[in-house]
Order: sequence, then structure tokens, then C-alpha cells
Amino acid sequence: MSLLVVGSVAFDEVETPFGKCDKMLGGSGSHFSISASYFTDVSLVAVVGGDFGPDEQKVFDDHGINTNDLERISEGQTFRWRGRYEYDLNVAHTLDTQLNVVADFKPKLSESAKQSRLVFLGNIQPDLQREVREQVPNAELVALDTMNLWIDITREALQRTIEVVDVMIINDAEARQLTGIPNLIKAAHKILSWGPRALVVKRGEYGAALVTSDTYFAIPAYPLESVFDPTGAGDTFAGGFMGYLASQEKLDDAAMRRAMIFGSVMASFNVEEFGTERVRRLTPAEINQRFSAFKPMKHSEEIPFRRKR
Amino acid sequence: MSLLVVGSVAFDEVETPFGKCDKMLGGSGSHFSISASYFTDVSLVAVVGGDFGPDEQKVFDDHGINTNDLERISEGQTFRWRGRYEYDLNVAHTLDTQLNVVADFKPKLSESAKQSRLVFLGNIQPDLQREVREQVPNAELVALDTMNLWIDITREALQRTIEVVDVMIINDAEARQLTGIPNLIKAAHKILSWGPRALVVKRGEYGAALVTSDTYFAIPAYPLESVFDPTGAGDTFAGGFMGYLASQEKLDDAAMRRAMIFGSVMASFNVEEFGTERVRRLTPAEINQRFSAFKPMKHSEEIPFRRKR
Repeated sequence: MSLLVVGSVAFDEVETPFGKCDKMLGGSGSHFSISASYFTDVSLVAVVGGDFGPDEQKVFDDHGINTNDLERISEGQTFRWRGRYEYDLNVAHTLDTQLNVVADFKPKLSESAKQSRLVFLGNIQPDLQREVREQVPNAELVALDTMNLWIDITREALQRTIEVVDVMIINDAEARQLTGIPNLIKAAHKILSWGPRALVVKRGEYGAALVTSDTYFAIPAYPLESVFDPTGAGDTFAGGFMGYLASQEKLDDAAMRRAMIFGSVMASFNVEEFGTERVRRLTPAEINQRFSAFKPMKHSEEIPFRRKR
Repeated sequence: MSLLVVGSVAFDEVETPFGKCDKMLGGSGSHFSISASYFTDVSLVAVVGGDFGPDEQKVFDDHGINTNDLERISEGQTFRWRGRYEYDLNVAHTLDTQLNVVADFKPKLSESAKQSRLVFLGNIQPDLQREVREQVPNAELVALDTMNLWIDITREALQRTIEVVDVMIINDAEARQLTGIPNLIKAAHKILSWGPRALVVKRGEYGAALVTSDTYFAIPAYPLESVFDPTGAGDTFAGGFMGYLASQEKLDDAAMRRAMIFGSVMASFNVEEFGTERVRRLTPAEINQRFSAFKPMKHSEEIPFRRKR
């Protein structure tokens, strides 16, 4: 097993200024695993209800995603999220959340899942994330995502989970909220002091940063003239980041930097259409083309200034 | 003449969560010219009152800033701004503005000022900026700054000024406000369609981007663990950007990219202390050291992904 993700599978109902979609495959586990599937073999641990049908299963199958550990509760309903974006698309307004089968979700890892080399703990309750983490003691790299809700209501549990992971993936508002420190660099170092060796800070349209105790790497977002639906962009980023890492032998700083760009590439595709639609039909050539486009966006010559008198 | 700036000289009273300063030298012209003075010869066109004394003059003299065109109205008072920053330092709350001598400011350019190779039109009323621009028809590069106030009350005049400059320097909120387009890339291209060949988008703690009709270059901000006073950061950025350009023979895309980094370097020093205090006592070695620090922040290897089956 290469890469394991524990997360949610959901049906999303999303309204943006550009359109409306009543029921589409969503959730952190879906966005992550479809994105990661372009780079590595992915196994998904999640729970769905009886309304999860062959069409949804086919999406996972088409991407070679292992769903042996996808729990099915036929008498239950799949997690549902309904949200709306305003014209600037920066903030998702949650209109309705129906936990359904997720309310009693206890992730169960098969023996083969426990042998995963890399693990992504998608956004679920932090105690559950830690229970999963304890079942993969030999994983080479475990990454964690979270959200403002868990920072609000389960901060201590979350901090204990942060202590036992290698990489934390977070957005800048969450990093500030979690630490109570407005300066992002200081907040990042605070979180690193709890245990992780790297922090990935997602900044939406401004890009992303990789912070370790002694390095700092920052990339812009791929510039898009039109953003259609940002739902799942963070998980799609994480999928590209972790999927790429899983494809590499060495999980060093150089690999993490390239993984940051592949994460951004995947997120940039994600926001171009509703839900997982654009990412579902990507080709390796399209991914590499956008990866290569980052070079000229970052390039400048290293000529120190010397004043002519 | 190398670089000419038209802007304001002010006395600022600033309160941040970290301290308070009753009266310090500020204004776009001051921040810009002190910053640019590390790279080139600068000439300042502005107006001051009788309260502008030898201490303030000495700051300009110490940096070799030409103040021959600095108008002095001995019976008037220098422009005053009073502001406060909250804990997150992102937004300046203006508590008081006293235009004083700036209210009737008509920039007067000496014959030598009219021969300037590069010109920065600092943030003043757009019609005045255009009048200055018309007096430097042979300038190789003219750059423009503005603010939300002028977008609100003089949008048409501002647009006519934008049409006759080479580079516009703006922050992302202003770019959106000016065009009414929430997508920054689209907004940038709209502004470019009015005339400028390059747009410099300042994004505060997120860095800055250089947008032309067919290129995109983005850099992070220099990561600082403590930001003390952001007042003047934008003008200090512009001073580093334009000052560096003025030192270069070719004003091409490669030079502009390096200028973006020097602008960011100067802005990063600016925010470390009150007003112009930190930037006043910089050394070329300190500037180059921070310039060099951008390389590892941006560096990643260009290895396309190839899946092993």
C-alpha cells in the first residue's frame, strides 16, 4: 500500500455566482483520492450510505482507488453539505450540514491499510485522526488536515494529534486561530514546536508556503482568469502533494518542494469546474504542462546590486 | 537626473499594538525617496510647511536626496496623518488627516527635473499626477501609485492618468475596486488594456506580482517573525523597485523581476521599525543579503512527474 487517506465522502450541493449543482460527489476523501490517484496507488477509508451508488463507485474505480475499506451503511444516508459562494469566491457559506452516517464513523483499517507508507488524515474529529495514526506506527510520513470547527471545539485533542504527525496542512487563518498568533511565520514555528517537521500553509489565491524550523519555501497560485467553484481545492492540493510524495523514494525537502507545486497544479484544475469534474478527466501531460509553467512564474536572476558611482 | 518622485512629505502619528510614535517623518515621497536613495540619485517634488525643520531636511540630505524642488511654505503646516493598527496589522485605521499645505499643492518641476529618466507619480490627486506626467514627455519609464480614495471620487481622472503611464503599482484590493472585477488576474489584464505595459500588484504579507499581457511573476514577502509598523511599506517597495530600475541600463522584464525583489527587500526592512527608521540606516550589504535570501525561498527542481508502473 502506497498512500492511505481517511476522510469524508459526501454529496455536495453548491451554489456559486456562475452556477448551481444539486448533488455532486464531494468530501475530503473524494477530492484527495481522485487528485492523488494521478501519482500513486491510493486507498480510501471513509463511510457512505445506501444512496452511494454505482455511478459514484465508478468514479473511484476509474481512478484505480482502492475502496476495500470504504464502509457502506445501506440503511444510512451519505454525508451532505450545502454551501454558497459569493462573487469573490473566497469564503464558503455553509447553508446546511447533514452528518448522516459520518456521525458514528469509526475508521477501520484493514491489515493491508495499516502497512501504508504514507497516510493523510483528512478533516475529521481529531481524536479519530489520532486513533488512525496509532494504527499506522510504521508509516514513513503522516500528514494532517483540520478545520476551524475542530480548533474551536476540540483544541486540546487537536494539539495532541498534531504532536504525532510529520506534516500539518493548514490554511493561514486556521494557523492564526490555532495559535492565537497573528504573525503567520511565528504561528508556523509555534505549530512546528509541537512536533511536525513541516507545515504546509495554504493561502488560496495567494499560493502556498512550506515552513520548517530552518527553511521557508513559497509559491504563488497558478494564475487563473476564471475560478468556478473552489470547493475541495484544499483537499485536492493535499492529494497532489501527498500523491506526488508517495511516488518518490526520498521524502526530503527537495521532494516536498516539488510536491507543493504538484499540489498547487491539482488545486488549480479543481477550481475550474464544479466539484471533482475537471480533476477527474486530467491527463499526465496536462499536469506536467502546468507544473512547468511554475518555472517562469518564479524565475529571476541572482545579481546582487552594486552601485555605480 | 536619474529618478524623480512626486509625492507627499508628512508628519505621521502612528499607534500600533507594539508602540506609539507622536511625530515622525512620513508620506509617500519620504518613504519612496529614502528607499530609492540606496540605488540611484533621487529628486523629490513635494510641499512642506514651516514646521519642516533642519532635522527632517537632514534625513533627506544624509541620503543624497535632491530637494531643490521641495516647495516650502513657511506660513503653512506640513501634511499630517494619524492612524492606528490593530493586532493583525493588515488594515490602517485613519484617525485624522490634515492636508494643510498639500491642499493647494501644484507640483512644479525644474528644468533639470523634467529631464528625469524615470518618474514615480506617488499617491496624489490623479489630475495632478497627469500634469506632472505631461511635463516629462521624454522619460523612459513612468510609474503610478494611487489609493482607494481616488478610485472612489476621481475614477475617470485616474483612468486617464493610467492611460499615459508605463507601470502601475497597486494593491490587490485597489485593483479589484478599480475594475469591479473580483478575479485579480482578469482585473490586472483589464488595467493593462488601458495602457500600462506592466502592473505591479502589492499583496502585503503575501508578497507581490508583476503582470504583463503575456507574463506573470510572483514572489513571496520576505518572512518576518515580527512586523512593527507597516506604514509606508508600499511606497518603500516602490522606492526599491524604481530605484533599482533606475540603476539599470535595460528596463526589460528581467530587470523588472529583480526590481520586484529589491522592492520587497526594502519593504521588509521598513515594517521592522517605526516610519523610516530602519530603512534610514541600511547598508548595501544588508540589502544584498536579504535579496540573496529570496533564492532558496523560491527554489525547486524542474522534474516532471513520470509514473512508475
